[in-house]
Amino acid sequence: MSDKKISDATIKRLPIYLRFLERTKASNIKSISSNEIGNLLKFNPAQVRKDLSFFGDFGKKGFGYDVDHLILTIRKILQLDKEISVCIVGFGHLGHALCHYSAYQQDNMKIKAIFDKQQDKLGNEFDGIPIFNMNNLTDVIKEKNIKIGIITVPHEFAQEVANALIDAGVKAILNFAPITIHVPDEIKVHYADFTTELHSLAYFLEK
Amino acid sequence: MSDKKISDATIKRLPIYLRFLERTKASNIKSISSNEIGNLLKFNPAQVRKDLSFFGDFGKKGFGYDVDHLILTIRKILQLDKEISVCIVGFGHLGHALCHYSAYQQDNMKIKAIFDKQQDKLGNEFDGIPIFNMNNLTDVIKEKNIKIGIITVPHEFAQEVANALIDAGVKAILNFAPITIHVPDEIKVHYADFTTELHSLAYFLEK
Repeated sequence: MSDKKISDATIKRLPIYLRFLERTKASNIKSISSNEIGNLLKFNPAQVRKDLSFFGDFGKKGFGYDVDHLILTIRKILQLDKEISVCIVGFGHLGHALCHYSAYQQDNMKIKAIFDKQQDKLGNEFDGIPIFNMNNLTDVIKEKNIKIGIITVPHEFAQEVANALIDAGVKAILNFAPITIHVPDEIKVHYADFTTELHSLAYFLEK
Repeated sequence: MSDKKISDATIKRLPIYLRFLERTKASNIKSISSNEIGNLLKFNPAQVRKDLSFFGDFGKKGFGYDVDHLILTIRKILQLDKEISVCIVGFGHLGHALCHYSAYQQDNMKIKAIFDKQQDKLGNEFDGIPIFNMNNLTDVIKEKNIKIGIITVPHEFAQEVANALIDAGVKAILNFAPITIHVPDEIKVHYADFTTELHSLAYFLEK
């Protein structure tokens, strides 16, 4: 890997390349060109070459990229070659959807705990993931060495939950609550805000 | 509104401003500066001024923006001042979560139909939204004048569903399926791909 600074935009495209390459591999395709990747993902091929050049010169002119090698490299760059423990806070419809989805994914990033303030019984679980009361958040996060927290509580509780996650040792947050949360500089937050995507679509409808 | 070209990035920020301003209004605040908006949303204040300048010069130096006026203007620009009918295709956990969320939102964008291939009874509904079999998709979309479709089916069916939505008259798609879909130029697609956001967070954890 080179020392060049990798932009956030490139980092966000890497999981898209990875998913695409894993499906390409499943179709028994061994190598692929930047033009093919660009066309199928609707990215500019020059952008594809630039993104992938950050990680060394994989592409052979006229042969394209070796699919297996590119998968391994992207997984390593994203640290998806190691096990990463995730928790989810808020177990409404969205929390259920995410846990159910996660349970069927074959990757090293797994939801290891669900927290909900409604939870009052010990020993409950969903798709094999244990459910805890919010009061146990700090202990469980430390014990399970959880580094990423997913927030799906209503917006008025999101900041408080983020604070508790960070105090317990979480380093990165995926926030589904429709509100901006404020965190220390060393904590990374990504937003998964579908209402923003939905509302901005209206602009593009016929006037 | 000026004739300047508004970038997609600005359009995607408008719903975030709108949501923020509606909460600001609910707190009985009448005017707000670009610095305050920037700090609370973690946007650069110069970016805020630039975004809002596309729609005329609202800000009065030393007084800030009139909250009510800005809300009305952004709603109008995004076309959220008119009723927009939306449908959702795929009624798994995620579909349930989205419908439940939508039912409690006070805006003009409403989910008017749910489609699922498992649906075999007429007259079923969820939170007041009728559920139809996929076979009725074309007729229902035309009858209800649905312009936006939300896709939450598994990735292997997403392209086929997108084609059917577009054939029936849908002009914009919010795609939750983790795959790039291919559509004609005049159709707008936004992605709500939480696995991408989640996987790219891993990069930022300690090496």
